[in-house]
Amino acid sequence: MLEQSDLQSLEENLPFWKKVSDDERKVLMDGTIRFTHGKGAIVHDDRNICTGLLMVVSGQLRVYIISETGKEITLYRLFERDVCVLSASCLIRNITFDVHVQAEKETTILRIATDSYQQVGKTNPFVQDFTNQLVSSRFSDVMWVVEQVVFMSFDRRLAMHLLEQAAIAGQDSFAATHEAIARDLGTAREVVTRMLSRFQDDHLVSLSRGGITLTDRDGLYALT
Amino acid sequence: MLEQSDLQSLEENLPFWKKVSDDERKVLMDGTIRFTHGKGAIVHDDRNICTGLLMVVSGQLRVYIISETGKEITLYRLFERDVCVLSASCLIRNITFDVHVQAEKETTILRIATDSYQQVGKTNPFVQDFTNQLVSSRFSDVMWVVEQVVFMSFDRRLAMHLLEQAAIAGQDSFAATHEAIARDLGTAREVVTRMLSRFQDDHLVSLSRGGITLTDRDGLYALT
Repeated sequence: MLEQSDLQSLEENLPFWKKVSDDERKVLMDGTIRFTHGKGAIVHDDRNICTGLLMVVSGQLRVYIISETGKEITLYRLFERDVCVLSASCLIRNITFDVHVQAEKETTILRIATDSYQQVGKTNPFVQDFTNQLVSSRFSDVMWVVEQVVFMSFDRRLAMHLLEQAAIAGQDSFAATHEAIARDLGTAREVVTRMLSRFQDDHLVSLSRGGITLTDRDGLYALT
Repeated sequence: MLEQSDLQSLEENLPFWKKVSDDERKVLMDGTIRFTHGKGAIVHDDRNICTGLLMVVSGQLRVYIISETGKEITLYRLFERDVCVLSASCLIRNITFDVHVQAEKETTILRIATDSYQQVGKTNPFVQDFTNQLVSSRFSDVMWVVEQVVFMSFDRRLAMHLLEQAAIAGQDSFAATHEAIARDLGTAREVVTRMLSRFQDDHLVSLSRGGITLTDRDGLYALT
């Protein structure tokens, strides 16, 4: 059962909410369930191609793809108020790939069932418009990943990633394993370890078990 | 002035053509111009963000991005009957990147002006729907590039590329410079030269000035 705060989340974060009829709104509400996932939980994977739209109420989601051999690359992250549309990719004609979604912290989401969303979207152009805008946004996010992977040297990518992680954490020290950074950047753990050691030798970062502290932000910025 | 064959192209390749009003069709026709570009010509670049929709009547277009330092990677190719939508990216909210488009052969296109397309698209849902389907298709194409770049070894990518080029050429021998392959795959020319030499040593291909002949298709398939 949805609480009043959930309805408020839907209303605030779905731009079409006030432009659908009462009946349509009821269909959407009846199709929405709140879930809380623990840190590390897989919220959506490519065996469930239509989990539905996921709106982040609190916490943080990582959207990524995974190869046959288990290699990963993070496409983008979703934070409070963001909506994941690729977890409902069956809704979108011509999307032929699928993504995985993992909770990076304890994360509460509102999941709008694909059927309900599709039913309202079929007749309501504002809903369709929202879907299409989300798809274009994610396309732009992925193009940014392409540019990084193809055009940027690894030291630059790693420096950008560390600055971004510090921004997310809100401080210079944050938890991060070399393994997790490798998954984000689509590379091997050894490559991350080697470059982080070089950064430490250059006094840009200080490494500890399971954590990283930025010790020279300006130096890292200079690399980017 | 459009010829009868141009109108036929529009009718056959734009699924909304029969679902727009006569007035809307006239707006689209008045906004459409036929161009023929020589081999190698730049049809659209990121300084002209809204060239318009490009429909390929004959020939072949390459859609790619280019870095500040001039490095390139090909995102996809467009052939007869294909429509390029990213050359009209100002039409699409939340598309924050821009692409370049080059004619790889002498190529005739019909260019539908952004203004005309936008005018009809504003009121006609079939036109919007077509735009959105094109965007999703290209998004899927780009995800395929991401998977290749991040997950596949370079020998595998090069083998796939050579088989694809032979398929496009319709024969085992085709014109290709190491430079052009490097631009397609987003890597350096030296990397291509080194791997092609290895392929030649392994009797998979035979190299000549400006051209490549596949001499062992099965061997190349085995690599992919």
